Amino acid sequence: MTQTLTGITILDLTHVLAGPFCSMTLGDLGATVIKVERPGIGDDTRAFPPFKGGKSAYFAGINHGKKSIALDLKNDDDRDTFEKMLARSDVLLENFRPGVMERLAYGWDDLHEKYPKLIYGAVSGFGHTGPEAKRPAYDMVVQARGGVMSITGEKDREPVRVGASIGDIVAGMYLCQGVLAALLDRERTGKGRKIDISMLDAQLAILEHAIAITTVTGTPPSPTGARHPSIAPFETFHGSDGLFVIAAGNDKLFEKLCVTLNLPLSDDPRFATNPARVKNARLLKRLIEAVTIDNTRAHWIAKLTAAGIPTGPIQTVDQVLRDPQILARNMVVDVLDRNGRPAFKASGNPIKLSGVSDPSVRAAAPDLDGNRGEILRWLESDK
Amino acid sequence: MTQTLTGITILDLTHVLAGPFCSMTLGDLGATVIKVERPGIGDDTRAFPPFKGGKSAYFAGINHGKKSIALDLKNDDDRDTFEKMLARSDVLLENFRPGVMERLAYGWDDLHEKYPKLIYGAVSGFGHTGPEAKRPAYDMVVQARGGVMSITGEKDREPVRVGASIGDIVAGMYLCQGVLAALLDRERTGKGRKIDISMLDAQLAILEHAIAITTVTGTPPSPTGARHPSIAPFETFHGSDGLFVIAAGNDKLFEKLCVTLNLPLSDDPRFATNPARVKNARLLKRLIEAVTIDNTRAHWIAKLTAAGIPTGPIQTVDQVLRDPQILARNMVVDVLDRNGRPAFKASGNPIKLSGVSDPSVRAAAPDLDGNRGEILRWLESDK
Repeated sequence: MTQTLTGITILDLTHVLAGPFCSMTLGDLGATVIKVERPGIGDDTRAFPPFKGGKSAYFAGINHGKKSIALDLKNDDDRDTFEKMLARSDVLLENFRPGVMERLAYGWDDLHEKYPKLIYGAVSGFGHTGPEAKRPAYDMVVQARGGVMSITGEKDREPVRVGASIGDIVAGMYLCQGVLAALLDRERTGKGRKIDISMLDAQLAILEHAIAITTVTGTPPSPTGARHPSIAPFETFHGSDGLFVIAAGNDKLFEKLCVTLNLPLSDDPRFATNPARVKNARLLKRLIEAVTIDNTRAHWIAKLTAAGIPTGPIQTVDQVLRDPQILARNMVVDVLDRNGRPAFKASGNPIKLSGVSDPSVRAAAPDLDGNRGEILRWLESDK
Repeated sequence: MTQTLTGITILDLTHVLAGPFCSMTLGDLGATVIKVERPGIGDDTRAFPPFKGGKSAYFAGINHGKKSIALDLKNDDDRDTFEKMLARSDVLLENFRPGVMERLAYGWDDLHEKYPKLIYGAVSGFGHTGPEAKRPAYDMVVQARGGVMSITGEKDREPVRVGASIGDIVAGMYLCQGVLAALLDRERTGKGRKIDISMLDAQLAILEHAIAITTVTGTPPSPTGARHPSIAPFETFHGSDGLFVIAAGNDKLFEKLCVTLNLPLSDDPRFATNPARVKNARLLKRLIEAVTIDNTRAHWIAKLTAAGIPTGPIQTVDQVLRDPQILARNMVVDVLDRNGRPAFKASGNPIKLSGVSDPSVRAAAPDLDGNRGEILRWLESDK
């Protein structure tokens, strides 16, 4: 079955996470992704633990189904191969430090002149413009500098890192959006565009309510632990055997919650509106918990669910990977080895499209330079 | 200047965050976005604090530049208006509970038959398939159930919520990718597709290393506070006036760090390799902090930056909004009021595209039903 990006070729110079995360999504949508890697070492994540059968599970989880060729872009023969690939590709992706591509004579201006239809997607720590464009960054540097750490954690304790690398991942997702927008645009204009994504910019883009609060009140929000800063009740509560979440996002849900817990609070002026509930959130939590502490999480989740109130457990990742709803959505897929046997687990494709297949297996992640022969034959063919 | 999505019309039934975040990005890329809101109340976030001049800054931050019409989709006249809009739109977005659109006779099958070019983008808590498809969810429910909370926070303390609503935002970003892929696909097939995004699926998609670790080792990862779980030093350190980040991601950077701090540790077997440093991360942190505590964050950030070591401050959101690199990238924009005066601040568009304008102001967020006249005239026009 044809996928939405079938026939699109992505030449992927990126490594580690932000760029490869983008090309993974493009691959899941049907594009052919060719990793161009450094001879000898390749993508750094090939060496990231944990390993299985000598292969990195981390690398496999993000690079399944891609092809690999090792090229030294300072070597003339390899440059020749690379340029033949450029002539046949739709999209080039790179996440070098700004300036590296120009020093290789593969900067956007040169490429756009020679390959006007080529789309050029770049992701870097701070972007290709601005006073700090050339500085290096890792996920944690932009999580810290971009503000998300300052609103994550417990009140009056040190900020914590978001456990997933959202500094990289969100930037990779914006790069993916930019590539898709540029592919659509090319249908009308016939020309490629450059996409310049900054990991720091991408962190700002997800700050959401924090920008509104800071600019209107003058005071930046602090971490609020497990509570939403501007909706209540919207946080974790103790049952007799552990924590669960209640998210009553509007007055109607709050009223239902009061009925379900047999707590006569919805007419109380301290809790009658969401702004009032936010103001009195600590008291509200204690009043709700005085009820929930007497029974198990499972009891409350079943009871609140029956009443139509958003609720759920806090799951560890092993529980997530067994969650029936997750499995029913084909969100845990098998990554095959070279012999076609399941070797690793990876996240499925969350973009579910009608009339497009959603396979439950993914082709193997490539060995370094593992597709050289096939790629060279493609370059010599009539396409 | 033409944007990449100029000429595309989005009919947006979504409210709160995931859907509106998606249509905000589509609007920033040039699409016309028409919010279809409930008469009387409209989008719940119109009532979210903080307010300025009686308007919600939260609503303005996510709905700038959109148009609004209030329609009751159970009223015949309003249905007639809505169907005229469907006939002229490229994309319909909705984030109702699964089944609601079918009860309104606007389910995908009906719509696809009547408007074969229409793209239908849905985002819901758990998706349109699976045993729990019809259950409601909010951000925090999927952050908790999807596993990201279980890896965020301090060791041996209660898990915390990611301070930004990534349960909604990441789902909205995947919806945006799906819409863009479907628009591109429509160029070839002439037909629309349905996109079915589950907020829970989207949380799984960002778990990254946690899936690899859990499936290979059998043990799910725990929260590690502000430290990266498998790289060291890659965490926060105290200067004399506050916290900053050092992210020395490999041996070469660690050696540079030791030279810069005048700490003779790189030959010490306890710190010679990354696995050894991870094992002795607590001791390493104390040894580094014994040096950094004697001078300011600014001093260390300048010194480490000069040595090429990734570093940076932990910024509160007010500091982020003044960050010279952020400002140089046009990432803080003004949202105008109806009279064209700056009223609110919002995040800029992180998708920087060559040859496409990146305005530093955004048109006002609409009043509820504020564009009725204009929209009705458009429906009567020759388009």
